[in-house]
Amino acid sequence: MSATDFLLKPIGFVRSTLTNRGNAPRQGYEDAPEAWIEIEEAAAAALEGLAAGDDIIVITWFHQSKRDVLQVHPRGEITNAITGVFATRSPDRPNPLGLHRVTILQLQQNKLQVKPLEAIDGTPVVDIKPVLSASEDA
Amino acid sequence: MSATDFLLKPIGFVRSTLTNRGNAPRQGYEDAPEAWIEIEEAAAAALEGLAAGDDIIVITWFHQSKRDVLQVHPRGEITNAITGVFATRSPDRPNPLGLHRVTILQLQQNKLQVKPLEAIDGTPVVDIKPVLSASEDA
Repeated sequence: MSATDFLLKPIGFVRSTLTNRGNAPRQGYEDAPEAWIEIEEAAAAALEGLAAGDDIIVITWFHQSKRDVLQVHPRGEITNAITGVFATRSPDRPNPLGLHRVTILQLQQNKLQVKPLEAIDGTPVVDIKPVLSASEDA
Repeated sequence: MSATDFLLKPIGFVRSTLTNRGNAPRQGYEDAPEAWIEIEEAAAAALEGLAAGDDIIVITWFHQSKRDVLQVHPRGEITNAITGVFATRSPDRPNPLGLHRVTILQLQQNKLQVKPLEAIDGTPVVDIKPVLSASEDA
């Protein structure tokens, strides 16, 4: 680990009926299911203020990704021209962070039910942020 | 480092006239300036396909943040009720990732000029993603 690297610690994990990256939708809006996010006890106090109906950005770590991939055929289609991964949502990328805009369906202590979420069961969650309505921001 | 932690490697750095966290706007839409993002040579191939005019999400690592903060007074105002950091955009949070929606003004080899960006000079960049128009997603 070099001085300029950073250590990311999971604050929770996805619990989903999706168990296989090959069968998961590529994006949440492509008919992804409801899922639960279980937040670690040590981080649960950071949920204070979130409520059912809120739109949030969940940031995940695609733990099954290849990190040495810089260019891909988008969506895995060989007929799509080779493109840099920063111009795509490929899960294979130097830092395989996933960005998911979801709605909170319910909260139970340290668990949030959200929809739609295309991340597979066991995917680590590294951050949660509110959607900023002022800017229609990420 | 435990088996469940992940190593994040900077893919570039922010070059900005903002040099002090105290003077920086809290959000990009709060009159943040133009800035340059210098991508490391080793990752430059991942920019292929990006162009001036594109809206992108830049993910940064707020390297000056406190990671043991779980609740804050939003925007640092003592009159705002204590709130969990996952319900705020506080830079102090367990994994201090910054999410910035910006427009590319120009590209020069491995450098992108973008606007608006509230991150200070020297902030590490860890990922870049296109905005998904299909979902108005993050």
